[in-house]
Amino acid sequence: MSFSEYPSKLLENAVNEFASLPGIGRKTAFRLVMNLLKRDSEEVKRFGESIIRLHREIHYCKLCHNISDSEICSICSDEKRDRSLVCVVENIQDVMAIENTRQYRGVYHVLGGVISPVDGIGPGDLKIDTLEEKVKNGGIGEIILALSTTMEGDTTNFYLFRRLNKHNVFLSTLARGVAIGDELEYTDEITLGRAINNRNPYHQ
Amino acid sequence: MSFSEYPSKLLENAVNEFASLPGIGRKTAFRLVMNLLKRDSEEVKRFGESIIRLHREIHYCKLCHNISDSEICSICSDEKRDRSLVCVVENIQDVMAIENTRQYRGVYHVLGGVISPVDGIGPGDLKIDTLEEKVKNGGIGEIILALSTTMEGDTTNFYLFRRLNKHNVFLSTLARGVAIGDELEYTDEITLGRAINNRNPYHQ
Repeated sequence: MSFSEYPSKLLENAVNEFASLPGIGRKTAFRLVMNLLKRDSEEVKRFGESIIRLHREIHYCKLCHNISDSEICSICSDEKRDRSLVCVVENIQDVMAIENTRQYRGVYHVLGGVISPVDGIGPGDLKIDTLEEKVKNGGIGEIILALSTTMEGDTTNFYLFRRLNKHNVFLSTLARGVAIGDELEYTDEITLGRAINNRNPYHQ
Repeated sequence: MSFSEYPSKLLENAVNEFASLPGIGRKTAFRLVMNLLKRDSEEVKRFGESIIRLHREIHYCKLCHNISDSEICSICSDEKRDRSLVCVVENIQDVMAIENTRQYRGVYHVLGGVISPVDGIGPGDLKIDTLEEKVKNGGIGEIILALSTTMEGDTTNFYLFRRLNKHNVFLSTLARGVAIGDELEYTDEITLGRAINNRNPYHQ
């Protein structure tokens, strides 16, 4: 069933806006709007304003480019964090994923993407200059390149390696291998091959 | 991956609002909010305002209770529509579905739900009084009961039949039978049984 005609222009506008979101089709958008219509006026106002406020009031941390409610994000302003250790990630989702592990006590640097000629994203579109600046200013002992293991991620890793390696900083990447809980039978050949080559001493 | 901590309260608020929508989990909500964050300020403002405006400015048609931009909806105010023929439906989605067939030239009456004791919805919660009023006022020749073939729909059909049958109006329901394109093998017994009992003369 397609909705070729809406009984209201206001309804159609709202459905169009929701349908512009990724993964939301017109039918789902309509269902979401109908749900909002049934709610209290106050609740709907709060919904709409949460989006507008987010966009108007959000900050990007001056140091790491992570999303923040203030000029310096909560991670960069945390005294207990090791500022000599910088983890370079693609986006803020990756920051949140690493933070959720509760294993990392350094700080981050959010590139805002990866080099992808197909999408027209070159090194100039990413926060690489500010990263190099940080390294030049000193005080950084190690940089962890924590980008995706995609072609674009690897390209960006390589580019960053070339640009940062000339400065006095230790560069590392995340360990690659078989994911915990994965069966070898269903692990792809490249991952399994690398896991064999980069095997670790056994410890209990 | 669960997001136990958000780097920004504003972000968290927006994610919470989206996650309150039916069928939208926290991960999807986050993805949608990140998509909005990447957009122009103007675009995001338009998105938020489309929701607020919808709720504030929408009307429900005084005659049929359909959603509308004005006091009388575009269907009820259409001179070409047959006002002596009223199709009773559960909600505005059903109006749109029937409108999309382009087969119907009468008007509608939107009940706003069906009788469902489990959900605490009784006849008093639906727009049944205004329907009876319309019938009493005269000028209506036929009422089509076009409710779902669920238990609640059938209950409501029966209740409406009892209430409206005493007035001078012809009551009908939608034809039930095997859906076009369906294979008999996979049609449920009740539908198939009714389709046999209510068989029509063959015409080419």
